[in-house]
Amino acid sequence: METVAENRSFGGVQGVYKHASDTCGCDMTFAVYMPPQAAEAPVPVLWYLSGLTCTHENAMTKAGLQEHAALHGLAVVFPDTSPRGEGVADDEAYDLGQGAGFYVNATRDPWKPNFRMYDYVLTELRGLVTENFAVQDRHGITGHSMGGHGALTIAMRNPDRFQSLSAFAPIANPTQSDWGRKQLSAYLGDDEACWADHDATLLLEDKGWQGDILVDQGGADQFLDLLKPDALAGMMTRRRQPGTFRMQKGYDHSYFFVNSFAGDHVAWHAERLH
Amino acid sequence: METVAENRSFGGVQGVYKHASDTCGCDMTFAVYMPPQAAEAPVPVLWYLSGLTCTHENAMTKAGLQEHAALHGLAVVFPDTSPRGEGVADDEAYDLGQGAGFYVNATRDPWKPNFRMYDYVLTELRGLVTENFAVQDRHGITGHSMGGHGALTIAMRNPDRFQSLSAFAPIANPTQSDWGRKQLSAYLGDDEACWADHDATLLLEDKGWQGDILVDQGGADQFLDLLKPDALAGMMTRRRQPGTFRMQKGYDHSYFFVNSFAGDHVAWHAERLH
Repeated sequence: METVAENRSFGGVQGVYKHASDTCGCDMTFAVYMPPQAAEAPVPVLWYLSGLTCTHENAMTKAGLQEHAALHGLAVVFPDTSPRGEGVADDEAYDLGQGAGFYVNATRDPWKPNFRMYDYVLTELRGLVTENFAVQDRHGITGHSMGGHGALTIAMRNPDRFQSLSAFAPIANPTQSDWGRKQLSAYLGDDEACWADHDATLLLEDKGWQGDILVDQGGADQFLDLLKPDALAGMMTRRRQPGTFRMQKGYDHSYFFVNSFAGDHVAWHAERLH
Repeated sequence: METVAENRSFGGVQGVYKHASDTCGCDMTFAVYMPPQAAEAPVPVLWYLSGLTCTHENAMTKAGLQEHAALHGLAVVFPDTSPRGEGVADDEAYDLGQGAGFYVNATRDPWKPNFRMYDYVLTELRGLVTENFAVQDRHGITGHSMGGHGALTIAMRNPDRFQSLSAFAPIANPTQSDWGRKQLSAYLGDDEACWADHDATLLLEDKGWQGDILVDQGGADQFLDLLKPDALAGMMTRRRQPGTFRMQKGYDHSYFFVNSFAGDHVAWHAERLH
């Protein structure tokens, strides 16, 4: 693991690191914020998964999570959203290939060799973070848009590995959306039975979540048709899933929305992880 | 004035606007954050001047000022750092020409026709903001690096127009620095007597500031030699200038530093403007 940059931030350290990923078969860059409390004792970890077109950097610089993580004593990990590089498959569209890993393990070519973001986040990067940073084995997970999809699906499939869960404007029902059908078919093939494990609404129906879930959705989000928050909110109600679904009046899909509610989400995770 | 974008942020609106500037002789883009309190009554204004290479956008997305401005009920204005465009003079160096206006009115060609950021910020943009937004005639000013230089010099020369003043890692003594001598000589000519009006340390010696000043400086700033905080801190002491100069251990020159102390600065201005 190589240190790309470390900057002091709110009394802690915002770092960017690079490593050769076995899972993805390429170099991967990620960011970790370590709060000041970590100098005294290991802290719980909040995973923040980013959306389409993002790298580790967008949320690190725009979401404003550090201030709240420093207040509450949480580490925050910002993974990249896909494998990258010249030898890695790509597509001209912004929503397929590099920058659009969808947090699945691809089973179809040309994606299969590298696009394994599910295993990468859940296992390889988690191991690397555990080994190299002063963190407890207490993990919360959140994310925005495609990253909200990743957070919800990874957590519901691995309830033993996460103790808290939230999402910002998640892609909530990808098997029924153009943000989903295109990518799941490309990465996993046309058998839609294989897609259900990567659809938050279907997973919620099938498994639910052990704890309570916080979801924020902008009421003026320009992508409501693609995100399908109605499906998730409806299933939360029908399933009697403990949690809070908030429709936030006037907010769109941007980082200004994420930033506005970052404090609430960090506090939510801190209450459940400490 | 044309609206480029408006995003809901912390219950208020983060907007980006464009207008044809008479002062700069080109189109200028700027950002304004209006807090939720402005829906009820006009609010005071905090001017945030950015540093070398920045536009209106960097601090708007990275400095985290909105959260605190919403808490304290301040508008925040983010001007660009220079005139821009094809017809505007430029230099290959990052620290001269476009992105490097230094908040002066240039008197030398090729800069003279457009590089009038002093008048632009102090008069034209202030008029435009006053006319188009629900703001009081109460103004604070701050900035980072070249923008900290701008804030200190503009405020000290216009004590009737600003009621509060702070700076993040300002270029504090440009007449004695390579961040300053090069630009002041290009924009104002070789007569160093003309430069004194644009040097915070010299203005502090000559005029001081009516109120108290807050300055934060990262102790691990990679540009300490160019910023010359010692000159400013020393003059504050010799001049018995009321104020607070904080050397912040471990912080560098990045937005992670600005972000970490944004809350303190917004609170400082709010206390003095309300």
